[in-house]
Amino acid sequence: MTPQLRGWLEERKPPFEAFLGQLFEDAWPTQFGEMSRYPLQSGGKRMRPMWVIAAFEASTQAPTHPGLLQVAAALELIHTYSLVHDDLPCMDDDNERRGRPTVHVAFGEGPAVLVGDALLTEAFRLALSAPGLEADQRVAVGLELAEAAGYKGMIGGQAADIGLAGPITNRNELERLHRGKTGALIRAGCRLGGIVAEANAAQLAALSTHGEAVGLAFQLADDVLDAEEDAGEEGPPSFVKLLGEEPCREEAEKLYQDSLTALECFGTKAEALRELATYTIQRDI
Amino acid sequence: MTPQLRGWLEERKPPFEAFLGQLFEDAWPTQFGEMSRYPLQSGGKRMRPMWVIAAFEASTQAPTHPGLLQVAAALELIHTYSLVHDDLPCMDDDNERRGRPTVHVAFGEGPAVLVGDALLTEAFRLALSAPGLEADQRVAVGLELAEAAGYKGMIGGQAADIGLAGPITNRNELERLHRGKTGALIRAGCRLGGIVAEANAAQLAALSTHGEAVGLAFQLADDVLDAEEDAGEEGPPSFVKLLGEEPCREEAEKLYQDSLTALECFGTKAEALRELATYTIQRDI
Repeated sequence: MTPQLRGWLEERKPPFEAFLGQLFEDAWPTQFGEMSRYPLQSGGKRMRPMWVIAAFEASTQAPTHPGLLQVAAALELIHTYSLVHDDLPCMDDDNERRGRPTVHVAFGEGPAVLVGDALLTEAFRLALSAPGLEADQRVAVGLELAEAAGYKGMIGGQAADIGLAGPITNRNELERLHRGKTGALIRAGCRLGGIVAEANAAQLAALSTHGEAVGLAFQLADDVLDAEEDAGEEGPPSFVKLLGEEPCREEAEKLYQDSLTALECFGTKAEALRELATYTIQRDI
Repeated sequence: MTPQLRGWLEERKPPFEAFLGQLFEDAWPTQFGEMSRYPLQSGGKRMRPMWVIAAFEASTQAPTHPGLLQVAAALELIHTYSLVHDDLPCMDDDNERRGRPTVHVAFGEGPAVLVGDALLTEAFRLALSAPGLEADQRVAVGLELAEAAGYKGMIGGQAADIGLAGPITNRNELERLHRGKTGALIRAGCRLGGIVAEANAAQLAALSTHGEAVGLAFQLADDVLDAEEDAGEEGPPSFVKLLGEEPCREEAEKLYQDSLTALECFGTKAEALRELATYTIQRDI
């Protein structure tokens, strides 16, 4: 991570963590509120909400917006709910996340299902009540989240990932899986920042292009990294297995360049977005 | 059921079923789309969407509205997702619903978690893209759903129901549980119809009062019915156990009358709402 990005994150993350920290404080049952707060206190990198903030800053001269953290939090809640449900024994069956017991290990499977449901629902409540936004912006924010998280986005990708599309045997299917499973929320993060900033259609299109390229490049780079760590043929389908390692590397690099080209219309205001893209993609290859 | 209500439902249910029937048709993976459609093809009574339609008709002279079925469907999707997750082995562990295998029995637990997530997310997409509504109405519809389904509504009630509020030992706690678990969506059904009809604040307040009274009266009446079927002390807490059978009966009757009083401002336009209330509450006592 560059000193520039580190400095940028050190300014933006603490207020975001403070915002997250007061969610579910008024819940009943109190114990359920604590359970819902647990996966949010993960010490995660908060990449998706940081994309929201960086895309906002790229799209406007305004230093900030009263609804920005709330919209960013809505996206983080959706990411968090997906991890809580994904960790369940009937899904990936993970016992630990970031060095702590997963929600179902800490509190039980039934509570983990409900915590995920509560996080997802609260994401929409936050998005639709974010201060300082016009009604049409709130609708746009809510729709962006619903489309990115729904069956044409993240959930569709997860369904393919647990085998519901049958064996993934070609590049198009694998790309579709990842565009849904991880790409959709990254793209949404970029677009949400633009929506809060009242970006015009050309800016929003540029943010979409940027987010899509970053999301796919990240996955290609991740597959290259995995292939270096484990050269076996076992495990899930990967771009390296389907395309070979060097073509993957080249394509990740090409997508990285595409993601930067898409930001040219924003000039220097997009510096944080560029840094995030570089960090996301290049740390792995 | 009165012939009047039967006739009313026979006109409203087929178009609603047709609307539900085309959801998730364009899903990928195709198999996941079919899994998501399965719990929607339940032959359920569709009470919640019928409340949306009846409340709409009470609040306006307009015969219908282009977004009405879509808003009603959003509510039904939330109800359906809650059943899919509630049936999971880690929750109520039910193998059958309406004579058919539950989703996790038919397709597996992992798919059932994802189907529930997809239904919940799609509910918000439908609500926020319902045709013929102004942006502020869409926001109101989406917020109504998020608040009713979230931790201050249905999920909070479910969390209490699986024991996260500790033992339920008094009437206030039990009422709070049921106001969340079942009451919140009934109230939301009534209010959503009003929002689509551009009801004024007094009408919306009357619809809230009506829905809350019906929801609680339904639960009291249901507990009386359960007590008649099974006089034992086992099982979950109930109003009959806490208050006694005759006080429950009296309170259900009082709430039923309250629910009708709340509708006086609508005149004869609220006839379907009155019929639904009578059917919902009195069939059980």
